Amino acid sequence: MPTVFPHDSVGLVTPQMAHFSEPLPLACGRTLPAYELIYETYGQLNAEHSNAVLICHALSGHHHAAGYHSSEDRKPGWWDSCIGPGKPIDTNRFFVVSLNNLGGCNGSTGPASIDPETGQPWGANFPVVTVEDWVNSQARLADRLGITQWAAVVGGSLGGMQALQWSISYPERLRHCMAIASAPKLSAQNIAFNEVARQAILTDPDFHDGAFQSRGVIPKRGLMLARMVGHITYLSDDSMGEKFGRGLKNEKLNYDFHNVEFQVESYLRYQGEEFSGRFDANTYLLMTKALDYFDPAARDNDDLAKTFAEASAKFCVMSFTTDWRFSPARSRELVDALMAARKDVTYLEIDAPQGHDAFLIPNPRYMQAFGNYMNRIAL
Amino acid sequence: MPTVFPHDSVGLVTPQMAHFSEPLPLACGRTLPAYELIYETYGQLNAEHSNAVLICHALSGHHHAAGYHSSEDRKPGWWDSCIGPGKPIDTNRFFVVSLNNLGGCNGSTGPASIDPETGQPWGANFPVVTVEDWVNSQARLADRLGITQWAAVVGGSLGGMQALQWSISYPERLRHCMAIASAPKLSAQNIAFNEVARQAILTDPDFHDGAFQSRGVIPKRGLMLARMVGHITYLSDDSMGEKFGRGLKNEKLNYDFHNVEFQVESYLRYQGEEFSGRFDANTYLLMTKALDYFDPAARDNDDLAKTFAEASAKFCVMSFTTDWRFSPARSRELVDALMAARKDVTYLEIDAPQGHDAFLIPNPRYMQAFGNYMNRIAL
Repeated sequence: MPTVFPHDSVGLVTPQMAHFSEPLPLACGRTLPAYELIYETYGQLNAEHSNAVLICHALSGHHHAAGYHSSEDRKPGWWDSCIGPGKPIDTNRFFVVSLNNLGGCNGSTGPASIDPETGQPWGANFPVVTVEDWVNSQARLADRLGITQWAAVVGGSLGGMQALQWSISYPERLRHCMAIASAPKLSAQNIAFNEVARQAILTDPDFHDGAFQSRGVIPKRGLMLARMVGHITYLSDDSMGEKFGRGLKNEKLNYDFHNVEFQVESYLRYQGEEFSGRFDANTYLLMTKALDYFDPAARDNDDLAKTFAEASAKFCVMSFTTDWRFSPARSRELVDALMAARKDVTYLEIDAPQGHDAFLIPNPRYMQAFGNYMNRIAL
Repeated sequence: MPTVFPHDSVGLVTPQMAHFSEPLPLACGRTLPAYELIYETYGQLNAEHSNAVLICHALSGHHHAAGYHSSEDRKPGWWDSCIGPGKPIDTNRFFVVSLNNLGGCNGSTGPASIDPETGQPWGANFPVVTVEDWVNSQARLADRLGITQWAAVVGGSLGGMQALQWSISYPERLRHCMAIASAPKLSAQNIAFNEVARQAILTDPDFHDGAFQSRGVIPKRGLMLARMVGHITYLSDDSMGEKFGRGLKNEKLNYDFHNVEFQVESYLRYQGEEFSGRFDANTYLLMTKALDYFDPAARDNDDLAKTFAEASAKFCVMSFTTDWRFSPARSRELVDALMAARKDVTYLEIDAPQGHDAFLIPNPRYMQAFGNYMNRIAL
């Protein structure tokens, strides 16, 4: 409970809301009549408006990337290790914008919002949104903030996909694209894990075809299972072994199904429980679909180099050795395509034990490389 | 529908039942008062009783390992590729015994059997059985069949763990121990996947604390999810990519949650559905627990070499390059320990694209190596 915030924190931050009344056409063919995006900013926009950095969040992320909402907060924003004075995304230099995506459950218009046509929460009727849709909605937020060109668009995992999509959809509107622990599209195995998570939610009797909100329940079991299976894929086998091994919760074995036997079970159940209390099931479905659908090279017959042909940003691609969700091989696919397309690309493969989650962890080598790249961006 | 069976098939087989009325003390501290084991045999026991091979099954396996139960059968037993005249486990030489383990759901005493004390199905009250317990029950089956020493005990995955346990519990009763795609114990990640599967079943409202049988329902959703997540871990990322890639079920995207979008989703749902109709949920829980608990070196302060000190069998350990459930590294742990214990050990790492499932697939290199090992066993 820091009453005085750390010296390298952006300190107290207040989310802001932007309302958009112009309809947004979506990839699925439907149109969102109007919507709101909640966002935060850190640092100062310079006179030339040339120092803005957009942060794109991953599956369960949101707008609160850095700093604290109150002096009571036990934890700062989700990427506080990377954003702040003197940190890799240095708020002494950059004006940082971080939003909650459309379809989210942290303040932006999403399944829990009221559908103006019915007067009821959208629930599972909220349109399926894609990475492309998000980028279009983010471009309107940029317009609103007077940012015609981002110094950089930065994201990890699903966030990295948004950064990549920016370079394709709006080549003139960003100078640098930073895709961390990301991939040009999901593999069959990635989709399979998402499908398990979705089926866990969809088959939970408390899901009520997505209308659980009006019933006053949540599909807790489904969300819990979805998070548990997701969580395993965020960690490396080694890091789980390091953290839990075969350590027992109690001194001896119980030989039953209800007591927790191994510490790793206890950890997973806690992660699942905690998540099910704070995340919207319909949003979870939407986010996994956005991941599945992302495949910018599909329209170019899988020729990813062709997809990036018109991009004018410089690229920085980073991966982590033990990440098996989006392994270094997936980042190298990106780098190969970018090089084939004769783009300026920097690639860093960081030795880190934490698996996919490494992109959230202030590993010194990662922090230094990340900072070095950001610091050489001309403003 | 082969009315004439293939020439290298063991042909028509009939399961047999062995009843054991002597109580079986279990690792959990409870005792099973009496039990039945269903088994099949292939080939002929020789006069010296020196040519018997025991097959141990994995998580969802059973006694029907080879041949056909009727001329109507569409498929032979689960390991038919490896057992038969001229096959790696050559029934012209060997007398093969394959059983369904205690706690199973294919005929041996298990959760769906009647608890003599209550007159009701055991359900979730069936005692938690371990690999050690299984081996003890298998030893009694060997006694019944007049087999004092197996030429070999052979198993893949959880079956391999039983083969290893035989070499520890009954060193004099086997000449060869063959552990394929196995491990000396589960990793934290392995346990975590099992825990997701268990939670899927335990939290299914149709599970009714394991007493679903008397309610006339099955926890279909839970079993389906358990199988889906399990299935992903049986396949390699590459083999899923090869088989399904990002292929669509229909020509264009649906942008909804209910229709199947990608072929891999359709495949997984089918696997889950099919499994939930044929497998008992309480057995699934028991099998995952047997996996979790297997850790023979625990009593030796994790000194696996010490655990094998008294073993007198010769060992053959095999692994598959793309198996990430029980990776080659886990087999090498076994080999290292066996070498440290000065045992006779052969190790084969087979280049196969199919992941953990490779141990079920008649890859030529695997078949040849397997057969070569078996053929040099003196009878």
